[in-house]
Amino acid sequence: MENNRENTAPVGVFDSGVGGLTVAREIMRQLPMENVVYFGDTARVPYGSKSRDNIIRFSRQIIRFLETKNVKAIVIACNTASALALDTVQKETDVPVIGVIGPGARAAVKETRNGQIGVVGTEATIQSETYTKVIHSLNPEASVIGKPCPLFVPLVEEGFAKHKITEEAIDFYLSDMKSTQIDTMILGCTHYPLLRSKIMAYFGEEIHIVNPAYETAMDLKAALNDCGIANQSGIPATYEFYVSDAAQKFTKFANSILPYDVATTKQINIEEY
Amino acid sequence: MENNRENTAPVGVFDSGVGGLTVAREIMRQLPMENVVYFGDTARVPYGSKSRDNIIRFSRQIIRFLETKNVKAIVIACNTASALALDTVQKETDVPVIGVIGPGARAAVKETRNGQIGVVGTEATIQSETYTKVIHSLNPEASVIGKPCPLFVPLVEEGFAKHKITEEAIDFYLSDMKSTQIDTMILGCTHYPLLRSKIMAYFGEEIHIVNPAYETAMDLKAALNDCGIANQSGIPATYEFYVSDAAQKFTKFANSILPYDVATTKQINIEEY
Repeated sequence: MENNRENTAPVGVFDSGVGGLTVAREIMRQLPMENVVYFGDTARVPYGSKSRDNIIRFSRQIIRFLETKNVKAIVIACNTASALALDTVQKETDVPVIGVIGPGARAAVKETRNGQIGVVGTEATIQSETYTKVIHSLNPEASVIGKPCPLFVPLVEEGFAKHKITEEAIDFYLSDMKSTQIDTMILGCTHYPLLRSKIMAYFGEEIHIVNPAYETAMDLKAALNDCGIANQSGIPATYEFYVSDAAQKFTKFANSILPYDVATTKQINIEEY
Repeated sequence: MENNRENTAPVGVFDSGVGGLTVAREIMRQLPMENVVYFGDTARVPYGSKSRDNIIRFSRQIIRFLETKNVKAIVIACNTASALALDTVQKETDVPVIGVIGPGARAAVKETRNGQIGVVGTEATIQSETYTKVIHSLNPEASVIGKPCPLFVPLVEEGFAKHKITEEAIDFYLSDMKSTQIDTMILGCTHYPLLRSKIMAYFGEEIHIVNPAYETAMDLKAALNDCGIANQSGIPATYEFYVSDAAQKFTKFANSILPYDVATTKQINIEEY
């Protein structure tokens, strides 16, 4: 850590769009003193169907932008970018960079009783097998069943979370997984917690559902403490929101899920970074 | 027109992704002598939920790329970009630029018997009211009912075109329109022709469905003849395909809808243009 980064410096949090707000919400709850700069890449959303090369390039641009805000740590609040870009950008960045996959995998390994874990996510996240690799590093005996559910993100974004169409899509994607012995399922995409109640209803009480946001905020807390950079100023936290497109739409969505009034979101041209 | 552009110079065709291939297919069919350079902006797809400013910026970058291929004319094979960017980029470009909305509107005005026309498209296309404005310029008495159907593009892209979920989505979006008197419907998004049979089945025989691709290719033919730049070389046409991401996936999709073997698609970094 460089000495010129103050403890009051913000934490940078980024996602392909609005999904990462479920992670930001958990950070605000668990670390109420930490200032946050959030970036949503709404001009290039979604990431889940795009290639590793482009996800790495997008992540580098966003980290360069967050560095102009003098962030003291970065949270990749996007499963796809955590799966495809975390290893690469961690090596290139001089502040701690935390993804959502390690925390989610750890929580699942703690929760499961029979070692059979399901993971749902985007095509890119599941194809990368990053969850499987991290779970096996924690418990080589665990059995991991992954399933890409590419329609879930547009269903959430278009407001169908409570609709019958979503029930049809859950049945389409998850009927095979329902007939397995999994007792724990990771919601491996930051949009999916918004479908939690419908997924719970489909699987019934016997399954434990893991939302990596909670453990990610705990990881961030530990990293800030370990590096001696937690904010102990006693000054109430401030939050800033940036997007690459459609700032007003983002503000509206943010206000529907954050326990905090988002007054404005600023639009920037991320391709300049 | 500049004199240094040869009649054998290619026509540039672009879209946010794969949808515009339904327009390229029609150009290849109607203008078999014309060389085509196709660009699909797969790194930033979809356009339909993004802002006018970004759609104009994306379109300018793509036109600069196509100009490096020395194109003699450009077809914007994307309804969203035609609705939001055509007027702007036409003024800035020294070759003919043709969109899909004028041709689609003209076909609908020709087809309708009662003057009641429905338009389905992305949120951005419908909100712009470009179809309504163009239809009214042709027939001020026409009544136009627009409906955004944002789930249709992901349903096509994820392979649900023939699935029951798509029937549910059609009913969700179009039940209001079904109870109106429209006798003609414009498929105002290049993905939607792939849902044509399901939409036809929902509305029944009495409705006429307009796919703007056919009229767009006719417009291109007229423009090339008017400018004296139609290709009369007698040499068989060649086709080149470029994307901003995931070239292999694009090639596979292209081969499923073009009557022509797409051997390779090249990936470029569109942000450099």
